[in-house]
Amino acid sequence: MTGAANRAGRILPALEDRRGFLKKTLAIAGSGAATLAASRVHAQGDPAILRLPVHSSSLGRPVAARGYGLPSEHESNLQRRESPGLTRVSQASVAFTPLQGMFGIITPSGLHFERHHQGWWDIDPRQHRLMVMGLVRQAKVYTMDDLMRLPAVSRIHFIECGANTGMEWGNVSVPTVQYTHGMLSCCEYTGVRLATLLDDCGADTKKGRFVLAEGADGSGLTRTIAMERALDDAIVAWGMNGEMLRPENGYPLRLVVPGVQGVSWVKWLRRIEVGDQPWHTREETLHYVDLMPDGTHRQFTSIQECKSVITAPSGAQTLLDRGHYNVSGLAWSGRGRVTRVDVSFDGGRNWRTARLEPPVLSKALTRFNISWSWDGAPAILQSRAIDETGYVQPMIAQLRAVRGTRSIYHNNAIQSWRVAANGEVSNVQVD
Amino acid sequence: MTGAANRAGRILPALEDRRGFLKKTLAIAGSGAATLAASRVHAQGDPAILRLPVHSSSLGRPVAARGYGLPSEHESNLQRRESPGLTRVSQASVAFTPLQGMFGIITPSGLHFERHHQGWWDIDPRQHRLMVMGLVRQAKVYTMDDLMRLPAVSRIHFIECGANTGMEWGNVSVPTVQYTHGMLSCCEYTGVRLATLLDDCGADTKKGRFVLAEGADGSGLTRTIAMERALDDAIVAWGMNGEMLRPENGYPLRLVVPGVQGVSWVKWLRRIEVGDQPWHTREETLHYVDLMPDGTHRQFTSIQECKSVITAPSGAQTLLDRGHYNVSGLAWSGRGRVTRVDVSFDGGRNWRTARLEPPVLSKALTRFNISWSWDGAPAILQSRAIDETGYVQPMIAQLRAVRGTRSIYHNNAIQSWRVAANGEVSNVQVD
Repeated sequence: MTGAANRAGRILPALEDRRGFLKKTLAIAGSGAATLAASRVHAQGDPAILRLPVHSSSLGRPVAARGYGLPSEHESNLQRRESPGLTRVSQASVAFTPLQGMFGIITPSGLHFERHHQGWWDIDPRQHRLMVMGLVRQAKVYTMDDLMRLPAVSRIHFIECGANTGMEWGNVSVPTVQYTHGMLSCCEYTGVRLATLLDDCGADTKKGRFVLAEGADGSGLTRTIAMERALDDAIVAWGMNGEMLRPENGYPLRLVVPGVQGVSWVKWLRRIEVGDQPWHTREETLHYVDLMPDGTHRQFTSIQECKSVITAPSGAQTLLDRGHYNVSGLAWSGRGRVTRVDVSFDGGRNWRTARLEPPVLSKALTRFNISWSWDGAPAILQSRAIDETGYVQPMIAQLRAVRGTRSIYHNNAIQSWRVAANGEVSNVQVD
Repeated sequence: MTGAANRAGRILPALEDRRGFLKKTLAIAGSGAATLAASRVHAQGDPAILRLPVHSSSLGRPVAARGYGLPSEHESNLQRRESPGLTRVSQASVAFTPLQGMFGIITPSGLHFERHHQGWWDIDPRQHRLMVMGLVRQAKVYTMDDLMRLPAVSRIHFIECGANTGMEWGNVSVPTVQYTHGMLSCCEYTGVRLATLLDDCGADTKKGRFVLAEGADGSGLTRTIAMERALDDAIVAWGMNGEMLRPENGYPLRLVVPGVQGVSWVKWLRRIEVGDQPWHTREETLHYVDLMPDGTHRQFTSIQECKSVITAPSGAQTLLDRGHYNVSGLAWSGRGRVTRVDVSFDGGRNWRTARLEPPVLSKALTRFNISWSWDGAPAILQSRAIDETGYVQPMIAQLRAVRGTRSIYHNNAIQSWRVAANGEVSNVQVD
């Protein structure tokens, strides 16, 4: 089963329905462990003689018992997790989004991945300021209230860390999709276009070919962004999924740079500078560069190319019996819309086109679904996305032919999940 | 200001920046209370001599400090709230969504409105069953795992309680948009189409012109749904905004009936019955009927007609100075897409067309924004939505001419917010 049991990381309950409700009237012909057909049960007798569970026969909890709601207690195992030993300090580490148990395209803010360079803070928005300076007619400092009076836009976009799936470069098959692809989220952002702020300050957009974005955390994270990108669809955002940004995601202000790797989405944004050349900061020289086979580094590779992954079934889940499954996954492209996702169940020999769930948006996650009837034999599941530029997601061998095996960043290869005869799903690399 | 200060329900801080950061290098020419132009400050001197706040000079909190994230401590005032005295029992009451402080179209699950008839429960999904019966070839009972193996779909839709804005029928102007319009949310739902389940059970969709949906809570809430609607876009959903439904919203299973009032979105869904006539249950005879001027009741009025509301600025907020504002709101229609939203700042004499933020989806909330320069004089703000059927949102007087003043449900009138010369915003009714 790839459903509730695997999501919660639990083994399915015994065949016997423990509370015994429905027992008197229903002949339980199967359990979650049986085939889909077998696990369906015929209704018999009169519903009126049901022994009702407590939730059907007594008063529940009141409204506003929780002014801010939380997930079910039964879902407590579905959370973001740090990969143990990935970094030496948890303030400069990653907590991954649990894609294996998620649906649709919207990442709930409570499960948004985290990547910090010096830990996170809950900054008082009344004290926070954004300075815009450099090659501008008039440098300005904005309060949050100033910003929130400006024309606002809302957009749904994915964010992916450039290092997502990075362990796979070296043939290290980490076990679950949470750790292979979980530096990936998708939210609805609200804020003011960076272009609006640059215009408000009279930025020189001809001489000023670049913009620097700087965060207010201790790492003083800084990234260079090309002016054409800043003027296109970048957003200085305060809203995420209908409410203010979460502290871990840059509250009260972060930069949104659609299609670009997460490090450029500077959190706790405090300064924008307009300049005539790249700054070559720490995070674009020592880090976030691609080590090539000849020993050189590729720098400023920032766009997240077209990519997809099957999230269910995925690594460490188990198919407990043969029969129909809804195979589901995510596809995205930093260059625009996903136009097609093909899925293979035999390691790439045959491909079938999956259904894309609406809305299919530019530089946003796209959810795909496809039906699969498992015959009980070993299988290898893969998904391959194509975007509106015609780019086709590559195999890892194709990437390695150009990039070698010593990269950390920008691995958008096709992911392979092996289903064993006993139903266990594991991460394998297929050339 | 309609920004951070009003959102958190606080008065703006003193003009002096209390922590004093930026003080040495920036001449603070204004505060949040000044005009937008005046509150901007020129950057002077060398940023290197800034006295850094603690969050810029020390180590923050580690990743995964919270496996499931929560809003900022500074946002604790933004929560759903029960309207005191609305009902005698909090288990049969309402907690409203705080629209006045929200952005975009996605309602974070923690702020989704609540409306229960006998309180809420956190039902164990391993114990939960859905029975499909009645005019079907083979009645069946599904476990959650059974359901989650079936072909899944994901869709973004609004849900609105039929009683939303109900107090306004009787000229009772409740003070805030949270209480006038806060029985309204919009989420991405994932589940199996009801049509798939009906097909799986061999439902007789000719003789079986109706479907009954029944919840597992103590109220045994039941609603009749027309078969054409059941076969169209109704979803038996387990997912909401990327994760499992919240307990308050029907975990682990609820019916999603796009465009239809919330009471038909049966929570804790346990039974679907196919029949040849409406059931005339309690919630469609005693309640959720419209009392007409001649004393008769309209029954089975379920579609939520085209409607809109300005959420910021809105009742009980205060504009502290003249100048530019981003006026923002929501529009929706149970009949399809919103095609246009017009906004008036003078009580309906002149109208300007607002920007609709993408995506504009069928039977989903649509966010609109429009710029407004307040000259300090009293003003009346209104929004008027038009949907793809050509239907134009009516004035309350137009509705009252047909429906009288004794209805509770289905008030989709234009909402008017009065801005006084001192900037205070209040709810007024304009004929």
